[in-house]
Amino acid sequence: MESLQKSAEEQQYTLYKDNSWPNKQESTNHYKSGVGGFVLVHAGAGYHSESKAKEYKHACKRACQQAVDQLKAGALAVEAVAAALVELEDSPFTNAGMGSNLNLSGEIECDASIMDGKSLHYGAVGAISGIKNPVLVAHRLLSEAQKGKLSAGRIPPCFLVGRGAHDWAISHGVPPCPSEKMATKFSLSAYKRNKRKMELAEKMDTGHNQTKKSRQSSGNENGLECLDTVGAVVVDLQGNVAAAVSSGGLAMKHPGRVGQAAHYGCGCWAENACNMNPYSTAVSTSGCGEHLIRTMLARECSASMQSEDAHQALLEAMQNKFIMEFLWSHTTESMCVGYMSAQDSKAKASPCANEFFTLSTTLA
Amino acid sequence: MESLQKSAEEQQYTLYKDNSWPNKQESTNHYKSGVGGFVLVHAGAGYHSESKAKEYKHACKRACQQAVDQLKAGALAVEAVAAALVELEDSPFTNAGMGSNLNLSGEIECDASIMDGKSLHYGAVGAISGIKNPVLVAHRLLSEAQKGKLSAGRIPPCFLVGRGAHDWAISHGVPPCPSEKMATKFSLSAYKRNKRKMELAEKMDTGHNQTKKSRQSSGNENGLECLDTVGAVVVDLQGNVAAAVSSGGLAMKHPGRVGQAAHYGCGCWAENACNMNPYSTAVSTSGCGEHLIRTMLARECSASMQSEDAHQALLEAMQNKFIMEFLWSHTTESMCVGYMSAQDSKAKASPCANEFFTLSTTLA
Repeated sequence: MESLQKSAEEQQYTLYKDNSWPNKQESTNHYKSGVGGFVLVHAGAGYHSESKAKEYKHACKRACQQAVDQLKAGALAVEAVAAALVELEDSPFTNAGMGSNLNLSGEIECDASIMDGKSLHYGAVGAISGIKNPVLVAHRLLSEAQKGKLSAGRIPPCFLVGRGAHDWAISHGVPPCPSEKMATKFSLSAYKRNKRKMELAEKMDTGHNQTKKSRQSSGNENGLECLDTVGAVVVDLQGNVAAAVSSGGLAMKHPGRVGQAAHYGCGCWAENACNMNPYSTAVSTSGCGEHLIRTMLARECSASMQSEDAHQALLEAMQNKFIMEFLWSHTTESMCVGYMSAQDSKAKASPCANEFFTLSTTLA
Repeated sequence: MESLQKSAEEQQYTLYKDNSWPNKQESTNHYKSGVGGFVLVHAGAGYHSESKAKEYKHACKRACQQAVDQLKAGALAVEAVAAALVELEDSPFTNAGMGSNLNLSGEIECDASIMDGKSLHYGAVGAISGIKNPVLVAHRLLSEAQKGKLSAGRIPPCFLVGRGAHDWAISHGVPPCPSEKMATKFSLSAYKRNKRKMELAEKMDTGHNQTKKSRQSSGNENGLECLDTVGAVVVDLQGNVAAAVSSGGLAMKHPGRVGQAAHYGCGCWAENACNMNPYSTAVSTSGCGEHLIRTMLARECSASMQSEDAHQALLEAMQNKFIMEFLWSHTTESMCVGYMSAQDSKAKASPCANEFFTLSTTLA
């Protein structure tokens, strides 16, 4: 694997040269050119094999189509974004829902979150097992919270994890899915390869008796195969925005690890325009969880997009708040993205948007 | 119970009238008056029975003393703040560690987090069972992450939940504690009372066949007994800051619910002074989890304290970002706080700092 092979300077350079950042003017045009809604999805930052480029594109296309169908039927942004995520989770090729990375114990534990820009409500699940579509649980948590308090004045939860999240989902009508059905041939063979790599790396560490040193430097040459969080942002026909993300988490993560996809302000953010914010913003991030958490990247990008020159502000936010600080550890090699407007309904997909690992749409 | 009995206006008024907000000048004097460190702890916002005021004061005093002893022995802020939290968790009267609230299933599941202002590293656990001192697991996650990557370039976790968090703790030498030993006579009888209240409230809901309406309005008269997150902020002899929080969560919460005490930016925040920030800040919050999460209160307060007039900025942050939006639902009735400087080592404790549910210290 070729993880982390770029130096800080190279990546920063690519970022500017590549110039594949969300273009505010362009997104605005999409919105202004008609009353149609808009959806933008991504299949996760990481390493996409060329042989599967077609599959990623198809998954993105299906996700766009689902969301647009919902929008045309009058659904709100938050419903359409959930529908897009279900398609991405159902693809066995993404690291979300079906076909997710396996953890250290060979189990699948998923994170997902969703945010409604209209109500600013948020729902999330972490380290949930045995559920095919974690985003549906996050969505249900959001809907239930909007109904107000529970009996005896109890505040409804917005974030549930582990076994408790699973049980809540079942009791709210989300169907269970046996864990063994969620693993795919692809995810199981990746697990076996990763396990061998880990054992080899640990053997080398022990052999050299330099545990501490090798622990700090073994990232580049022994990196595990990895695909990151999938996500989508949607604008509905009324101009409401919503965002959602879903992830199987890092390959060979410790059981119980919760990544950025479940963290408020880190995985996704959506905020309708209001008195304080001139623009509606929706953000979905993908990349190494712990670093996206520390930078609260989704919320940070959303705030940056409120400035006069959103394009420049976003670049600065990435450079100052994320890239300068954590460049060495984010793992984006390629990424499949797609977008569609409810007006023309033609999906566009790009299998290799290098370094373009935050998707966002800004609307006047 | 007298939950939420104050109107928005009353609470806001109390906030101003009471004027018990962290006074920047005062804290600065503490620091400038000597080379000594400083610790400030709180036993959680909520409802403190008068009969237990002595116990809360004692717990705060012991926590202060532990932290100061550590500071005098040369410990860093992050170590001292963990030591303070252990004392608060060990008190059977606080809603953290031993004696925590029981959840819907009658089990104890705890949240805790810790942040080091020097490295900005962060560690957290959510919905963890069978561990007497959850803060020690959060602290250990922070320390392990500071050692760099794991074998094969894996990123160490900063946030673990549920069974996985428990197993990680045990494998890292944190001793287990049978759940039945963590429940106290007090927490068990509170559980029984709360359960009866819930059943009664639900029966009334069904009887009136007005589920939706009563769901939204049943908070005031049927509120459950509740004590919130405990926490501490520390400045060490070198001027580094650290903050930590720990909580058993809301009484009768759904299993798997994770509250603000485990959320990055919501439960605690610590940041040493640097080029961008003229002041070192450390913040620990306590109150209704879901609302503290949505306001990212700890980080928001920390940012506000960087302004010229920190006192005014903090009031504004609370009013604009928290109180105006969520006043009706926070549950502070009384709170026990204590503070101590390493110089004079005399603890001061106040059993009833009304409405003073965010503790913070700002140092030039």
